[in-house]
Amino acid sequence: MSDITTKAINSIRVLAVDTVAKANSGHPGAPMGMAPAAHILFSKFLKTNPKNPQWINRDRFILSNGHAVALLYVMLHLIGYDISIDDLKQFRQLNSKTPGHPESETPGIDVTTGPLGQGISNAVGLAIAQANFAATYNKPNYEISNNYTYTFFGDGCMMEGVASEACSLAGHLQLGNLIAFYDDNKISIDGATNMAFTEDVSKRLESYGWEVLHVSNADTDYSALSNAIEKAKLSKDKPTCIKMTTTIGYGSLNQGTSGVHGSPLKPDDIKQLKEKFGMDPNQSFTVSQDVYDYYSKIISQGEEENNKWNELFDAYSQEYPEEAMEIKRRCDYKLPSNWEKLLPIYTSNDKPLASRKMSEIVLGKLEQALPELIGGSADLTPSNLTRWTDAIDFQPPQTGLGNYKGRYIRYGVREHGMGAIMNGIAAYGANYKTYGGTFLNFVSYAAGAVRLSALSGHPVIWVATHDSIGLGEDGPTHQPIETLAHFRSIPNLMVWRPADGNEVSAAYKVSLESIETPSIIALTRQNLPQLENSSIEKASKGGYIVYDVQDARLILVATGSEVSLAIDSAKKLTEQGVPTRVVSLPDFLTFDKQSYDYRKSIFPDGLPVISIEVMTTFGWGKYSHAHIGLDRFGASAPAGELFQKFGFTVDNVVEKAIKTDEYYKGKEVLSRLDSPF
Amino acid sequence: MSDITTKAINSIRVLAVDTVAKANSGHPGAPMGMAPAAHILFSKFLKTNPKNPQWINRDRFILSNGHAVALLYVMLHLIGYDISIDDLKQFRQLNSKTPGHPESETPGIDVTTGPLGQGISNAVGLAIAQANFAATYNKPNYEISNNYTYTFFGDGCMMEGVASEACSLAGHLQLGNLIAFYDDNKISIDGATNMAFTEDVSKRLESYGWEVLHVSNADTDYSALSNAIEKAKLSKDKPTCIKMTTTIGYGSLNQGTSGVHGSPLKPDDIKQLKEKFGMDPNQSFTVSQDVYDYYSKIISQGEEENNKWNELFDAYSQEYPEEAMEIKRRCDYKLPSNWEKLLPIYTSNDKPLASRKMSEIVLGKLEQALPELIGGSADLTPSNLTRWTDAIDFQPPQTGLGNYKGRYIRYGVREHGMGAIMNGIAAYGANYKTYGGTFLNFVSYAAGAVRLSALSGHPVIWVATHDSIGLGEDGPTHQPIETLAHFRSIPNLMVWRPADGNEVSAAYKVSLESIETPSIIALTRQNLPQLENSSIEKASKGGYIVYDVQDARLILVATGSEVSLAIDSAKKLTEQGVPTRVVSLPDFLTFDKQSYDYRKSIFPDGLPVISIEVMTTFGWGKYSHAHIGLDRFGASAPAGELFQKFGFTVDNVVEKAIKTDEYYKGKEVLSRLDSPF
Repeated sequence: MSDITTKAINSIRVLAVDTVAKANSGHPGAPMGMAPAAHILFSKFLKTNPKNPQWINRDRFILSNGHAVALLYVMLHLIGYDISIDDLKQFRQLNSKTPGHPESETPGIDVTTGPLGQGISNAVGLAIAQANFAATYNKPNYEISNNYTYTFFGDGCMMEGVASEACSLAGHLQLGNLIAFYDDNKISIDGATNMAFTEDVSKRLESYGWEVLHVSNADTDYSALSNAIEKAKLSKDKPTCIKMTTTIGYGSLNQGTSGVHGSPLKPDDIKQLKEKFGMDPNQSFTVSQDVYDYYSKIISQGEEENNKWNELFDAYSQEYPEEAMEIKRRCDYKLPSNWEKLLPIYTSNDKPLASRKMSEIVLGKLEQALPELIGGSADLTPSNLTRWTDAIDFQPPQTGLGNYKGRYIRYGVREHGMGAIMNGIAAYGANYKTYGGTFLNFVSYAAGAVRLSALSGHPVIWVATHDSIGLGEDGPTHQPIETLAHFRSIPNLMVWRPADGNEVSAAYKVSLESIETPSIIALTRQNLPQLENSSIEKASKGGYIVYDVQDARLILVATGSEVSLAIDSAKKLTEQGVPTRVVSLPDFLTFDKQSYDYRKSIFPDGLPVISIEVMTTFGWGKYSHAHIGLDRFGASAPAGELFQKFGFTVDNVVEKAIKTDEYYKGKEVLSRLDSPF
Repeated sequence: MSDITTKAINSIRVLAVDTVAKANSGHPGAPMGMAPAAHILFSKFLKTNPKNPQWINRDRFILSNGHAVALLYVMLHLIGYDISIDDLKQFRQLNSKTPGHPESETPGIDVTTGPLGQGISNAVGLAIAQANFAATYNKPNYEISNNYTYTFFGDGCMMEGVASEACSLAGHLQLGNLIAFYDDNKISIDGATNMAFTEDVSKRLESYGWEVLHVSNADTDYSALSNAIEKAKLSKDKPTCIKMTTTIGYGSLNQGTSGVHGSPLKPDDIKQLKEKFGMDPNQSFTVSQDVYDYYSKIISQGEEENNKWNELFDAYSQEYPEEAMEIKRRCDYKLPSNWEKLLPIYTSNDKPLASRKMSEIVLGKLEQALPELIGGSADLTPSNLTRWTDAIDFQPPQTGLGNYKGRYIRYGVREHGMGAIMNGIAAYGANYKTYGGTFLNFVSYAAGAVRLSALSGHPVIWVATHDSIGLGEDGPTHQPIETLAHFRSIPNLMVWRPADGNEVSAAYKVSLESIETPSIIALTRQNLPQLENSSIEKASKGGYIVYDVQDARLILVATGSEVSLAIDSAKKLTEQGVPTRVVSLPDFLTFDKQSYDYRKSIFPDGLPVISIEVMTTFGWGKYSHAHIGLDRFGASAPAGELFQKFGFTVDNVVEKAIKTDEYYKGKEVLSRLDSPF
């Protein structure tokens, strides 16, 4: 390759080193090792147009080993995204565009990464979304969608189970549009990877059904890198891993050691590095004009490609106006008008149903109207009821099990992988509305991915069934206790626990309308009655009065399966002379977003509030003065017996409510909504 | 093999079927498919003595596909554990010995399983513990420890990332004492595994460094099963997987389909099954006497083996009295006397240190006295500071990196695997005290294992450093917000957040003394001052007054790094005429276990309480009336700037405290500890 290639690559290395040094914090080693791959990929292959960062057919790039982010910022700078040299100088500083790990708010960053194993799993989701988008909208002579998803990952990612799950599924799904670069640098924080990681990564990926190529000298053999990418692009029915053996911290005095992993290079090391690369050791943050010029051609090429695509899409719009309108609608993040009219409405005359069943009904009503709806389950389809009748599975067409236009994903028993893949699907754009089913208790397996959904604002939906001891005989290993509290305490995460059919519809309404807040919808295995005073509108506020009486003296607040228990108890209490109101609170976050006046009308001063929820009472102090819950693990027995055993009965609630009424007599009762500051 | 083998195997199948049918709930298919392997293993290989279920040198058996528990109960019944036919009839009923998934309270059950992927990972931990125990105590001619760990697992386990992590590490560690049976039945809940799981499991395990054997007909080829186990026992430096191709629900009309996975067999199916196996279709729960007789010989053999071991151990005790005493002490779950005197004590004159550093000091002080201490880190050793000086790594001796007597485990970037492996180490017995390091935020990756630690009562310790925005530049992907709330809401889990050196010592004291409660110890990256009024004794109560004044009007309660901020603020408030007390609350669970009077003395009526903790305020309502926290994600910047930005400053605390003081003037302030019921 030409001299400019070497020069550009060394410039990338040095710019990353300067960036980390200025911050006096960060990871220089991996950027230095991966600079050749980054340069070859970004300059020769990556289809992107920084003037149109949301271009739906751009190639996606995910830095799964997100600690190497200095490399990514440098590349975004060179390729023309809105990252200046000054931004590089602000690396890891307050309010900068260049935080310590990639965050999706930064232009050009497709997903937030850093927690290891997530990025490559997101990449699998991005590749699924692309395959589905292409299969849905491409037409003869109109290859509207054909982008690749590229990802860099390291040993750390490969050690994480979430990546195992996602990579295994990617192999199964034969995602030829996914190309992953494994930075085989043999170093992790503890030192040489042979301390803990001696597996044969290539063989493992092959066992998953991947194509694996090896570039044995990815420090300087640029042609080999380029050829490998060419070859990978031709692998149409297998994801490809390009294992590139690199030297971490290439060029540093400490190259090839953990010393260059997570600390800035020392000044004398930087000096010798610049000298070695023929650069002025007294200058920092400089890129020679020929390197900029080289990249500016690439920037123009990207614009041109985008323009060509625009022309193609214009022609497509003529020939396929309906599909084109749908694509535009989706890319504007709009749902079809009046879609919400399809949501089922129930009256109290309708028969009791399990809320998982009512969730299935919602999906069945919406699937035709919402081509952006794509979901699946972690091997619990018949339990989660996540597959609408006649759904087509998302599967490689040649398997005969489905096709890529299919919108039902068989995730296998891979909750964490599913969570991270959903984030990738959501990150693709085109307003993909994606959901994944498992038991509520096992959403915890995916906690790492759920937190990133919330942090990045991916509005994915967890269909979390079997949401309490109501699942019965499977016992305490399967019965959530802490799960709602855990997820309620994550910022920007809705945790719905609907009490009946209207509330299920409301949960889906708010969740599907959301464009930056994920949700977990907790659903029962057992039947729930349809309430008298519920409605989609009221439940969409997150909390509302579902049973009221004159001169109420007490409030019972409950969620999900306990709301009808609360109503039955309130009726009895009212009969017994303690007029009692019932509040249904299906989602804390949505309720907290309502006006103060509204919230205060629900929980006014003067009325003691008792919460009823068949799991931990932790966190209820936010709203209620006393709590009926389950602050222990459950047990294995038929559900009815468990509700009895743990006191979720009208008699027990009435007894505790009367005690509460007496306890607060003569005492001042302040609403828990108010605070001194 | 003999007729009795077939008869016994069919009896096991039918007894499992009857057990599930009687409960009208459960999983018959896997027990029917795995019955041959279970019979061969339990009758010809498994070293166990039901009269001494805690025998330290018994073989361990872990049912990782825990939904097949009916099989395990049947085997425990036959092999002489305290499970009667009546117990089988009580399967999945309230208060029975036979819950819906294996729970370790049941005699003969080594670990609680069910959540997929955990059991096989626990098995890796059991194998590590055995290897360490043997390397520590075996002497020439005295092979005190030589037991194997056997585990059955299915496709579901193999799909879970946690199992990937643990299996990869097991291969690296060359654990020849681990023998895993893969029930390759090609069926999961969704249907044929080829819908989601087409990887080559054997190749994958080989890539991890495992020996893989294949029994292609594990339904009836008993000799092949037996030979495979023989062969596996000879594999001294590789874990072995025996892939056994089975027919799920073997003998049922629906064998080989997902129809037999999770629902009882229909009566007519049970009838034909019994007829096919030459049994009386009108009888249930019957085992012919010759099968019982066969097993009773095996029971005697087990007793005999235990007796021989006792003799060996007696002789060992003569020759190696010190080691023998130590083994006895450990098997009595006792720590060495006066061990706690080794814990460092600090005064306020001692210099500020990061609490992760003070944790390192504790480990360094204790390692010699506590041979039961074994720990590691998920590739963050230099950050977690979990490795004492001169520690020997737990590594295969032939690698030259350490040996099996070593007590420092290099887990690699495998948090979930580490959590599950720790549970296995703790379950081994001999009072193993095990810890694992990672950043607090990434303990969430292991949530599935942490919950099982708490449910099963494995007193493992998480050394969870970088516990807040105090980690600084790595940014919001690494900064915990919900983490403490999540874990505080799990029953039976301590969540320590020490404020200084004495509190670090207290956290370790209580955690190490615990024999059935796990703990997470949240530690800072940044320095903390040594407090004036802290002590190990006080902090061991979970909460105490760390700064007091006459006629206090307000209480600030804080944890960890915020305690010194609270004290500084209280001093200023007191100066400004608002006498303010400070409570340090390093662990909610331990505090909640104190007497009511003690707790009420800390949080009396009449004093408004403000919590200060640099993460979610969710859950603080339990103790405090107003909360200073961080109900949003963090940011990437130097730590000091972040504390400023988010208001963790004396000025802000003082301002909020004064507002609180004014707000509550003239209002009745009830302690949050009291409740109407």
